[in-house]
Amino acid sequence: MVAADNLQKMPEKATFNLVAYLKERQKICEAALDKAIPIIYPEKIYESMRYSLLAGGKRVRPILCLATCEMMGGTIEMAMPTACAVEMIHTMSLIHDDLPAMDNDDYRRGKLTNHKIYGEDIAILAGDGLLAYAFEFVATQTPENVPKDRVLKVIARLGRAMGAAGLVGGQVVDLDSEGKSDISLETLTFIHNHKTAALLEACVVCGGILAGASLENVQKLSRYSQNIGLAFQIIDDILDITATQEQLGKTAGKDLVAKKVTYPSLWGIEESRSKAQQLIEAACKELEPFGELAQPLQALAHFIISRNH
Amino acid sequence: MVAADNLQKMPEKATFNLVAYLKERQKICEAALDKAIPIIYPEKIYESMRYSLLAGGKRVRPILCLATCEMMGGTIEMAMPTACAVEMIHTMSLIHDDLPAMDNDDYRRGKLTNHKIYGEDIAILAGDGLLAYAFEFVATQTPENVPKDRVLKVIARLGRAMGAAGLVGGQVVDLDSEGKSDISLETLTFIHNHKTAALLEACVVCGGILAGASLENVQKLSRYSQNIGLAFQIIDDILDITATQEQLGKTAGKDLVAKKVTYPSLWGIEESRSKAQQLIEAACKELEPFGELAQPLQALAHFIISRNH
Repeated sequence: MVAADNLQKMPEKATFNLVAYLKERQKICEAALDKAIPIIYPEKIYESMRYSLLAGGKRVRPILCLATCEMMGGTIEMAMPTACAVEMIHTMSLIHDDLPAMDNDDYRRGKLTNHKIYGEDIAILAGDGLLAYAFEFVATQTPENVPKDRVLKVIARLGRAMGAAGLVGGQVVDLDSEGKSDISLETLTFIHNHKTAALLEACVVCGGILAGASLENVQKLSRYSQNIGLAFQIIDDILDITATQEQLGKTAGKDLVAKKVTYPSLWGIEESRSKAQQLIEAACKELEPFGELAQPLQALAHFIISRNH
Repeated sequence: MVAADNLQKMPEKATFNLVAYLKERQKICEAALDKAIPIIYPEKIYESMRYSLLAGGKRVRPILCLATCEMMGGTIEMAMPTACAVEMIHTMSLIHDDLPAMDNDDYRRGKLTNHKIYGEDIAILAGDGLLAYAFEFVATQTPENVPKDRVLKVIARLGRAMGAAGLVGGQVVDLDSEGKSDISLETLTFIHNHKTAALLEACVVCGGILAGASLENVQKLSRYSQNIGLAFQIIDDILDITATQEQLGKTAGKDLVAKKVTYPSLWGIEESRSKAQQLIEAACKELEPFGELAQPLQALAHFIISRNH
């Protein structure tokens, strides 16, 4: 363990190359995801699942999961099945969110949404298939050197992050808030804590659990990820206003059109950006006890607020 | 272990009261399911999940799971979280199947379908929430006296039974076959093996795994459940023709209207009934080595083909 105040002196800190790191990690995540779902009969459902899963996201979630496992002394191999699972869960939530009965989006990551290609019925089933497979994948693919009780804890966390106590619950409140201009900060925070932060937290915490993190360290990881989760959402809201459709790869300005209450609509863009910056700093501070091992997660935190799409 | 040919002499065989057994088991399953999902904020999603989960099904799947666990030397407590999970998975598949983009059904178990009450968006999310919660529930609620590796095997089986290799895959082929009158027996069998039998098999096999069944016994359980699964579907097809909407609690005669290929349409009603009978006898024969302990599962097999709704 390296004391926090020694951190500045370490050359690794200065030389950590996030761009190269992300590129390498994205590559291994892409390969693992591609391998995770082969195409067999009935081909259409596997193609539909793969269409959205391999649509070229930034893979922030699986990379967070792998990075946390490594920071806590584990290996990439220990966390890779869980890293793939969180991306499957994230992807299925996007497929269902984009459905006409939900957000009714035609584009996602610059490509037509799943139901625009495969039809609503297959899109619903592709989401269901990805969700079920995520749990099967963690249960069957996690290597033998990870104790079974850790794998069960991971499955419990993933289920909770996705279900009514997590992403689904956040989406319900979000749908309920649409068209209302009097949404409180409390409600907005509930939506984002559940719709975005819960799964990000699961990525980070599960990476730690797989490596055998202590309860105290799991709590640090929770606080780190809650902070970056909220910052992530604030930046998302800002980008919806300031970025173009080309940059986002999805319909831009939807929140304004829908008169949606967002952080920028409550605080203004500058105040929102400053709040996101504070959250990222607080997140990084949580990881100071881990010294230079924390560099990837700290750099990832900063990456989240500097992204423009 | 009781030899099969001694079975007839045992008084328990004659006195096993399936009606009383089912009534008692349904009651404890209802209580466990009711307790599994409390209503908290945001209430709408929990109410929607509970609306379909507690809509009064026959609870065949959880009862099969509990009965198998007991037959293999386990307890009800060991299997109850998995029993609840299979009913959650079954229920979520019904909610999504009933959606306008899928089978577009207004009634299920004699009540309005989930989306008719809560809207399509909430119905999609309620299904997602139930599916995620099923895995969380098994991972967190299975008692400590069940070894963790068994719980992981159960989660893997449930995931597979629900996903593209199971229920979802069967539904895809089923949707693809709609309106076609030249569906082969092979395709029809694929649909039912995946849409119906896979989850029934998971119920039975998971009950056995939780109790520590040997590989050989798991294979017996697989054959038992594959047979009853197919018989179950044949009877379902017959009932769609012969039963009234009141008896079924859902729209009757849909297959005929949709010109759907079914077992009765291929074989006729009498031949189908006789095939179902043979499957049930083969299923019961698999369990003969377990002697009188197999009575509930054997009686349940016969119940499946004698039901009229």
